[in-house]
Amino acid sequence: MDTVSAEPQLAEPHLLGWLSSVGLDIDYVRAEGNTLYYLDENGGEVPVLDFAGGYGSLILGHNHPEISAYAQRLIASQTPVHAQFSRHPYANDVALALNRIIQRELGTDEYYSAIFANTGAEAVEAAVKHAEMDRGMRLRELADTLAENLAAARLAVFGGAAVAPEAFALVGLAGQAGRVSDFEALSAEIERHNAAQLGRPPVFLTLEGGFHGKLVGSVQLTHNEGYRAPFAALAAPARFVPAGSPEALKETVESERATVYDLVVEDNTVRVVERNSPVFCGFVLEPIQGEGGIHVLSAEFAREIQQVCAEIDCPVIIDEVQSGMGRTGDFLASSAIGLRGDYYTLAKSLGGGIAKTSVMLTRSSLYRPPFELVHSSTFAKDAFSCFISKKVLELLEADGGAAYRTARERGGKLKDMLEAVAADHPDVVKDVRGRGLMLGLEFHDQSGSASEAIRESAALLGYTAAGYLLREHRIRTFPTASAVNTLRFEPSLLLTDAEIRQLETGLRALCVVFREADGARLTGTAAA
Amino acid sequence: MDTVSAEPQLAEPHLLGWLSSVGLDIDYVRAEGNTLYYLDENGGEVPVLDFAGGYGSLILGHNHPEISAYAQRLIASQTPVHAQFSRHPYANDVALALNRIIQRELGTDEYYSAIFANTGAEAVEAAVKHAEMDRGMRLRELADTLAENLAAARLAVFGGAAVAPEAFALVGLAGQAGRVSDFEALSAEIERHNAAQLGRPPVFLTLEGGFHGKLVGSVQLTHNEGYRAPFAALAAPARFVPAGSPEALKETVESERATVYDLVVEDNTVRVVERNSPVFCGFVLEPIQGEGGIHVLSAEFAREIQQVCAEIDCPVIIDEVQSGMGRTGDFLASSAIGLRGDYYTLAKSLGGGIAKTSVMLTRSSLYRPPFELVHSSTFAKDAFSCFISKKVLELLEADGGAAYRTARERGGKLKDMLEAVAADHPDVVKDVRGRGLMLGLEFHDQSGSASEAIRESAALLGYTAAGYLLREHRIRTFPTASAVNTLRFEPSLLLTDAEIRQLETGLRALCVVFREADGARLTGTAAA
Repeated sequence: MDTVSAEPQLAEPHLLGWLSSVGLDIDYVRAEGNTLYYLDENGGEVPVLDFAGGYGSLILGHNHPEISAYAQRLIASQTPVHAQFSRHPYANDVALALNRIIQRELGTDEYYSAIFANTGAEAVEAAVKHAEMDRGMRLRELADTLAENLAAARLAVFGGAAVAPEAFALVGLAGQAGRVSDFEALSAEIERHNAAQLGRPPVFLTLEGGFHGKLVGSVQLTHNEGYRAPFAALAAPARFVPAGSPEALKETVESERATVYDLVVEDNTVRVVERNSPVFCGFVLEPIQGEGGIHVLSAEFAREIQQVCAEIDCPVIIDEVQSGMGRTGDFLASSAIGLRGDYYTLAKSLGGGIAKTSVMLTRSSLYRPPFELVHSSTFAKDAFSCFISKKVLELLEADGGAAYRTARERGGKLKDMLEAVAADHPDVVKDVRGRGLMLGLEFHDQSGSASEAIRESAALLGYTAAGYLLREHRIRTFPTASAVNTLRFEPSLLLTDAEIRQLETGLRALCVVFREADGARLTGTAAA
Repeated sequence: MDTVSAEPQLAEPHLLGWLSSVGLDIDYVRAEGNTLYYLDENGGEVPVLDFAGGYGSLILGHNHPEISAYAQRLIASQTPVHAQFSRHPYANDVALALNRIIQRELGTDEYYSAIFANTGAEAVEAAVKHAEMDRGMRLRELADTLAENLAAARLAVFGGAAVAPEAFALVGLAGQAGRVSDFEALSAEIERHNAAQLGRPPVFLTLEGGFHGKLVGSVQLTHNEGYRAPFAALAAPARFVPAGSPEALKETVESERATVYDLVVEDNTVRVVERNSPVFCGFVLEPIQGEGGIHVLSAEFAREIQQVCAEIDCPVIIDEVQSGMGRTGDFLASSAIGLRGDYYTLAKSLGGGIAKTSVMLTRSSLYRPPFELVHSSTFAKDAFSCFISKKVLELLEADGGAAYRTARERGGKLKDMLEAVAADHPDVVKDVRGRGLMLGLEFHDQSGSASEAIRESAALLGYTAAGYLLREHRIRTFPTASAVNTLRFEPSLLLTDAEIRQLETGLRALCVVFREADGARLTGTAAA
């Protein structure tokens, strides 16, 4: 250790110091299934049961034997990783496999087009870029239509058509009564109004508590202010809607809505009609919020969102980066609540625990092919990642979707245990949430604990709890990043009853530590 | 082919159709060294000599045997890929190795801190985020100082100090002559002015022709309007400066400069002084522009940038994603022109042709440790990628840096050949540029060709040329993405004399095709 500490620490030493302060600074050397191993002072492997699961990346577990063997074969057979701008049949194979699954879950035969990227955040940014490109094209189409209709109305007026008197009031021109000579004033006002509305910046809708990545654009869709605020000047902001509040949703939409004036000629009369202007770029949401504390979107509010978005021509962008790939018992967590996306983002488990890959799917009816010519990534769509993703999908779909049934059954058993612990410790455990293998357990606030040590750690409670579970029970988990009173449990499909019991033992002991305000035990500062 | 075409094409079919139209829609099945292989109709391997080199990702060539063997061992030994929020000694090893190399090249002993990411674009966004966080912290420090100095000046005035008469004129308050009773008007004006200046959005400086990625933030630093304009509403814009024009650089800086008024008390007199406000977030640049057409930044203009940035407290963010990792004969292309970065971004070849990894380096004196707590990525900083990067750096550094000498020697030989071709075909070849194994050959505009086919392909000349070289000479290259009259040559260190000769044969034949305006030959539409 002396030689190590003599070297400068250059890769996030501040974070490491902080992890060290809660006992999480472990050097893991091997990983298999649900287990990570570190070495004790004699070089012996110490197993740690992993419920963090790569923040949702390990639906198949660490180093799944079939994936690992396949990855080695791909490398040994000199698979071309870097073959940009060529034919990529393997990418299409992944897209087809995804479509077969998604079409089955959604009960649709509409296809989704696939743009590959490398990380979840990149897929979100690709979706946002595509939605904005589409919005721009819709804006231009609308502008063209408005200009054509205005020209047609002008011609009609010159030809003797009347202007409906209410037209002037509608656009805010008082004192003009529909004389033909007033048409130029009307059209000038309409053009001014329309230009202002068409030029408004895009509005992003998303949910409070949401997490969509930490790149320049995606971090502005991520609700956590600590992650987002320092970078607010870098990218377009989002409007955050509280999940479960249809009123707030409608108010937000009303306050951002943009309409333009169009002219129609009927019965030799020119009338003004109001039309939606595509100011809404997208509603970005997770069906189950991962970093926000494992909050499950209700089917009712999902329906509300779907309906409102349809009314305002706002694409629904469903972020399934963490919840997708079977984790919740369906391939898409959103399909279980009847929500259909115009876009989907997938990543994490899609790479099988070894590949860094992600995909953004757009439904065909919204897809803009020119996007392919302006968006790309050197590392994306490579054969290695695509072959691994295909294998992941095969493993999930094998035996008539046994993986989804397993996620439900194992998740159900895990959740039963968490709920039993909660029932026995209602003074300590506030809630248990989630579906399948995406579960969270929320502790009551401990800032009023009788223990000073516990009070002091209350602001980062889940990390201290994680340190305790690791030290005393060899269990790895973390709080959800933006809701640190909630511990996350996202194990792989391989979860055994014995592993559930190991976690139960740890959690029950932790509950006692909180109840007894045993700060020394929680923080590991008790005398040896 | 029939069964293939019966399946829907869902992974960028528009791009594929376009690649197909210029004969670039090849399905590569194996890759080794500088060679990619596809299969002919009998299943036999057809070798293609690759000068695209994964857009600069393959300084060690496709599937380098040591990297491949090591990658397989890492997978076979169950290396933990997903161990977020733990100790990552391997990440520090990469950071240390990078520091040893960079400190040697720069002749400094200052360290650079490392934030890992997964792609070049992600590293650029991390740099921009860090620079903006730093700017925000500098803004708050400055605001605090201004407030303190204002309070001190007020106290001094109340205590009998005079206000220097010229203070009023300086802040634009006419008609007040420095009476003590005017101090409140002065301070109100200063506070108004300062608040406006401190609240200005960040200014990014960058170079015309630059390419820094295609994510939401980074694409706004990328000059190509086709890539950038559709997404302009999503992120902060940049100011593009023409490389080589100190006047334009100074004009841009002057037009964006922000200053605040500070108050100092000397000799019982309160004076106003103007101070820089940190409005400049960063000057982002490539030492050799890759996608912009292989344009080498001159040492003179680099010095100019360095000097101007020092004057305005603007960090220099050097994007070495493509030019770094030894490609140009030094580890950093920028070190050869005496440019020192406050930030560096590295990616592409850092992953050895198999790992998707990148890193953003910040010099210690500018580094903000709290950044580590707000920026992260599930896939970044993983053991697999770090071990591979470490191996890449070892291979580059082996034998006293033989790789850098090889890049210079092989690159020199390749460039000699390109220049000989250019000298023999001055009517066809406009220029040869670059350094080491990062070279470009620019053709004269062909929109006035006697051949209709060549005139029609002139707007995408390099792609048509690439199609010809592939079809007739089994050579893979592409134009630089934003300058399509320039073909790129970025082979690996393994480049042989025979491979240079093969390219020479192809290029000489291509020059004849252009000279003879042989459109049928160029586009492959000649009778068989």
